[in-house]
Amino acid sequence: MIRNETRLRVRYAETDKMGVVYHSHYLVWMEVGRVELMRQHGFDYRNMEKEDNRQLPVVDLHIRYKAPAYYDDEILVRTHMKNTSRSLLRFGYQILRQAGEVLLAEGETTHIIVDDKLQRSSLPEKYLTALGIQRRKVNS
Amino acid sequence: MIRNETRLRVRYAETDKMGVVYHSHYLVWMEVGRVELMRQHGFDYRNMEKEDNRQLPVVDLHIRYKAPAYYDDEILVRTHMKNTSRSLLRFGYQILRQAGEVLLAEGETTHIIVDDKLQRSSLPEKYLTALGIQRRKVNS
Amino acid sequence: MIRNETRLRVRYAETDKMGVVYHSHYLVWMEVGRVELMRQHGFDYRNMEKEDNRQLPVVDLHIRYKAPAYYDDEILVRTHMKNTSRSLLRFGYQILRQAGEVLLAEGETTHIIVDDKLQRSSLPEKYLTALGIQRRKVNS
Amino acid sequence: MIRNETRLRVRYAETDKMGVVYHSHYLVWMEVGRVELMRQHGFDYRNMEKEDNRQLPVVDLHIRYKAPAYYDDEILVRTHMKNTSRSLLRFGYQILRQAGEVLLAEGETTHIIVDDKLQRSSLPEKYLTALGIQRRKVNS
Repeated sequence: MIRNETRLRVRYAETDKMGVVYHSHYLVWMEVGRVELMRQHGFDYRNMEKEDNRQLPVVDLHIRYKAPAYYDDEILVRTHMKNTSRSLLRFGYQILRQAGEVLLAEGETTHIIVDDKLQRSSLPEKYLTALGIQRRKVNS
Repeated sequence: MIRNETRLRVRYAETDKMGVVYHSHYLVWMEVGRVELMRQHGFDYRNMEKEDNRQLPVVDLHIRYKAPAYYDDEILVRTHMKNTSRSLLRFGYQILRQAGEVLLAEGETTHIIVDDKLQRSSLPEKYLTALGIQRRKVNS
Repeated sequence: MIRNETRLRVRYAETDKMGVVYHSHYLVWMEVGRVELMRQHGFDYRNMEKEDNRQLPVVDLHIRYKAPAYYDDEILVRTHMKNTSRSLLRFGYQILRQAGEVLLAEGETTHIIVDDKLQRSSLPEKYLTALGIQRRKVNS
Repeated sequence: MIRNETRLRVRYAETDKMGVVYHSHYLVWMEVGRVELMRQHGFDYRNMEKEDNRQLPVVDLHIRYKAPAYYDDEILVRTHMKNTSRSLLRFGYQILRQAGEVLLAEGETTHIIVDDKLQRSSLPEKYLTALGIQRRKVNS
């Protein structure tokens, strides 16, 4: 399976007055995990935007928060690809505190492919190949 | 039904290089809508934290993004309460561009009630009353 | 003098584990104040970007923090223009808690004018007029 | 001199519609640099907050932006301590793009020492020692 593990450390700016990480920052960590998964598989998101004029906005996001993340915690983001097609990408995530591998949150995102005018598009062949996505065989 | 409409304007800091609002900021707007719903119904979140030692962390969040929000857009956040109990609160949200009332996103959040040690707790009577939540009748 | 007062309310997401607003968010509030000052004087920042292909990146920023801002505080941002020219804009800011008009921070920003390739440019005549900036008389 | 170099990568969430990093995020990077400088010199900021009940809020910040940072850039944060005393800490920063070591910004922050009630305090002896700060000799 296409998966990736990325590490990051909780920043002070990411905490809130409850003393834990504010919940919207997990979405940024999921993005970090997703981009590193792509990079690891030869898919450079920055270049795709620049050279191939494609972008991958989130259209659906679900996250379950299990335990709080604290300031300075070392975080492990585990990302994996889910049933992806030429026109829709799906990723699953587990966010853990590295110490003790405590599960903090898990979630999924669904992305469409658009061009720089935000019009629906599809993923160029080389990225499909990079992500191990088979081109749908047309009959025969 | 317990509902609220709150208005805000997209800040430059909330946009990203795609030229639209980065998706994690919708969670902050949902929080703004939720807190204003509470305020409108006599439930002051700040005071609850300070005087009653309760907090309402998000445990589950689902959001569907329908259309992009742009810099300087005037945004309408429609929040309503869903089946809420003494130990679990649920809110639903619609996020719209005021001009033309275009639906940009919709979502739901589920919250538990904790004290300042992040231990499970329940909502004091006065807040249940404020939110129109009936105390479960114990037979009689 | 060209000045503006804008109000906003501290969001939970803007606080940190110290229980006060994290210091980087004041920069976002300064931007809100600056844009509202422009709007009030007939200078629409969004349109300037879109129609006149100009942007105003910050090149210098200085801020002194005097007192903490707390969650749910109503904030008053007082912005004024300082010695501005065709190629350089300067703004001064006071950030206050509305209750008691307590000064929380004061600062200044300096901006250059660039086009969408981030190349140095100057401010179109109509914006100079809107901001009450005299075109430098060329002797005679 | 007490100095540190820390690396990080620009996140998508840190960019804005100008296509570059929004200027307030540099303050978060400066915080990352400062905390890593302390950690490298045996000064754990998290533990100081927890065990010694001290915090270091920013009271003055000055930053000059020289060149834009782009999405996915690898950033180098160079932090050094400046004339620091028992009651006031000062840090200087250079923020560079690693590729080509292009200077993107430079700045300074000044911090006071407070307890968890935000009352002025001083830095415990062990942290002064860690940061190489001589205790002021009282004549003799």
